[in-house]
Amino acid sequence: MEQRRYFEQLDAIDPLLDLRALFDLRDDRVFFNGNSLGPPPRATADRLDEALRRWRDDMNAGWWDHQWLQLPTVTGDRIGALLGAAPGQVAVGESTSVNLFKLLCGAMELQTDARSVILTDRDNFPSDLYIADGVTRYVHRQATVRRVPTEEIGEHIDSDVAVVMLSHVDYRTAQLFPMREINERAHDAGALVLWDLSHSAGVVPLELDAAGTDLAVGCGYKYLNGGPGAPGYMYVAHRLLPRFEQPVTGWLGHTRPFDFTPGYAPDPGAARLTTGCPPLLSLLALDEGVQLTARADPAAVRAKSLALSEEFIALASERLAPYGVEVTGPTDTARRGSHVSLHSDSAERLAKGLAARGFHLELRPPDLLRFGLAPLYIRHVDVFDCVAAMEELLAEENTGHGGPRR
Amino acid sequence: MEQRRYFEQLDAIDPLLDLRALFDLRDDRVFFNGNSLGPPPRATADRLDEALRRWRDDMNAGWWDHQWLQLPTVTGDRIGALLGAAPGQVAVGESTSVNLFKLLCGAMELQTDARSVILTDRDNFPSDLYIADGVTRYVHRQATVRRVPTEEIGEHIDSDVAVVMLSHVDYRTAQLFPMREINERAHDAGALVLWDLSHSAGVVPLELDAAGTDLAVGCGYKYLNGGPGAPGYMYVAHRLLPRFEQPVTGWLGHTRPFDFTPGYAPDPGAARLTTGCPPLLSLLALDEGVQLTARADPAAVRAKSLALSEEFIALASERLAPYGVEVTGPTDTARRGSHVSLHSDSAERLAKGLAARGFHLELRPPDLLRFGLAPLYIRHVDVFDCVAAMEELLAEENTGHGGPRR
Repeated sequence: MEQRRYFEQLDAIDPLLDLRALFDLRDDRVFFNGNSLGPPPRATADRLDEALRRWRDDMNAGWWDHQWLQLPTVTGDRIGALLGAAPGQVAVGESTSVNLFKLLCGAMELQTDARSVILTDRDNFPSDLYIADGVTRYVHRQATVRRVPTEEIGEHIDSDVAVVMLSHVDYRTAQLFPMREINERAHDAGALVLWDLSHSAGVVPLELDAAGTDLAVGCGYKYLNGGPGAPGYMYVAHRLLPRFEQPVTGWLGHTRPFDFTPGYAPDPGAARLTTGCPPLLSLLALDEGVQLTARADPAAVRAKSLALSEEFIALASERLAPYGVEVTGPTDTARRGSHVSLHSDSAERLAKGLAARGFHLELRPPDLLRFGLAPLYIRHVDVFDCVAAMEELLAEENTGHGGPRR
Repeated sequence: MEQRRYFEQLDAIDPLLDLRALFDLRDDRVFFNGNSLGPPPRATADRLDEALRRWRDDMNAGWWDHQWLQLPTVTGDRIGALLGAAPGQVAVGESTSVNLFKLLCGAMELQTDARSVILTDRDNFPSDLYIADGVTRYVHRQATVRRVPTEEIGEHIDSDVAVVMLSHVDYRTAQLFPMREINERAHDAGALVLWDLSHSAGVVPLELDAAGTDLAVGCGYKYLNGGPGAPGYMYVAHRLLPRFEQPVTGWLGHTRPFDFTPGYAPDPGAARLTTGCPPLLSLLALDEGVQLTARADPAAVRAKSLALSEEFIALASERLAPYGVEVTGPTDTARRGSHVSLHSDSAERLAKGLAARGFHLELRPPDLLRFGLAPLYIRHVDVFDCVAAMEELLAEENTGHGGPRR
């Protein structure tokens, strides 16, 4: 166990370890699926208790007295700080998919009909592809979705393209797209870019404003630790916001929602991106998750994320490769987000065996295992133990078969 | 205080009084704004605690292990039971406005372009009007919204009308629209009807299936007691559902969401109405509110709602009319929902004075006071006390001015 001690020592000097104590974690389980759902901050329970008390005591007045009404943009700005976005450009909305729909429609609205292509990665997150299809099928019927291989995105950005829609980090391979470069290339061609930050916000350094980003959406329940189904957020750059029109024009986006005027007039700021009453309990939990996430130094988060990724990849290459397990995605960690995916013919068995040992991760049948390496609560020793457990499981499986396959 | 004793006795024999104890209510306050936000069921706190524990213990697996994923249609069916809808036609979605957008777009999709009118009440809830405007401005651009006075709705249902969009209960006057009659009239003319049940579900008997209703939406935080910003729901009749297409096509509406196929294929049932990950904490609170609401006998709810309305109107007419206070809406309670609105030049002062005495209600400036009479927790004596308090406030105000104005 010499090697394990090294990882323990890395944890002992981890500048983020204090934050780990602010999460409500079980000692007997390690969750490598924080890239699907981050764990609860300890403070979330109190925040919800307080909300229940206020709901009982003040009822409807809570929307004003406790500024629940402002929360979509207040939490939005807190998220904005994590995204490198100056205040006033981010609002929390409804689900990520609804938010994406709104921004995609709004982006198309900014372009002329002559630009009729939504360009995307054919390996983009399926739900994002569904939304784009819905937009072209039911709203901008003159438009089409052009799905191309990841490596061909750049060459397809031409004068037909209205919007380039991409995930900043590929949900399978963890590949990190060069945001600034793609923004620039798109702007040169007259296109807008809409980023999905679901797998990067809170774990990959983001500089939306500095990178000249136009539009972005992201989810609240992964690395932002906002809870199951936490509402997602929308970013529209200041320079686009005044003329940005999204189609789901509800009262919360109105400039004076309580005047009850018969006509819609959008709020001048990011509130115009919102539509209906926010699901307050879920929104408060999101706010708590965001506030905890924002306490971490982004440089420390990235440094630990890279270290965990490198450790995981190195250990997996050394110990698991002989059993036919392969690491996917870029080998250069600088071009990666914060999860590692492994291909293995034994994926389902491994996932089950790991779960029995307290290691939880995401299985994408038939053969993909995803390990989220969230620096705020995953320890170096967790990575070591998990790979060691996989090695044991694979060795057991191969006993009597003459050892490792190759 | 003879008269007060009569109201106390009504409470003593109220068959719904046991349910009142299941709400977390303050003894020193009466909330007549349950038509804006119902109070918390006592069980909601435990339900949220349990959810936090499951979130910590099981993380992402909760979506399967605790059937969180099914909740949009499970809670949907529970709501359906309150609406007179057979199972399989209701799903909980996101905010009421997003839900309305989806159903309105889907309804237009079912009609030919020749039918280009969305017909609505010009006094419909403003946010519903904003959504209709958004649909015609950004999605069905060939269509227009025709806003007509309430009493002219019937005569405007002609061969140009694609969808009639109405609130079942008028949010100001409490007027109850004759659902079956309007459905029939619309169907004769080839139009669909989309009802907003926000001010009727949980308090007015509903028989959506029997009334031949096509489509409906409603909110979760009023008479369903689902909590601040609780998600809303959508109803699409079985006969329309298989060909019903809504434009916000996200993974939750997919028939096999976890196959991660690149193409969208809608679920055959009500799940096709949904889009993204539901805000679980808010959804669980809604489920708790719905379950409590569903424990009441609908006939007892309606009977008490009518009684409270009649008492309120009678007392207000007798005691407040001399001070220039007027009851709005139908005098026939059978044609009313479960709130009463008063016009008064002293509305703002009255609202403030009542709040100081523990009576909370909704003020719509400049001169409208709305009192929600939710039978599950408003007592007969509350109505008596509140009108008595108003009378006192008005009398104080008039002291030195020669008594009542007329």
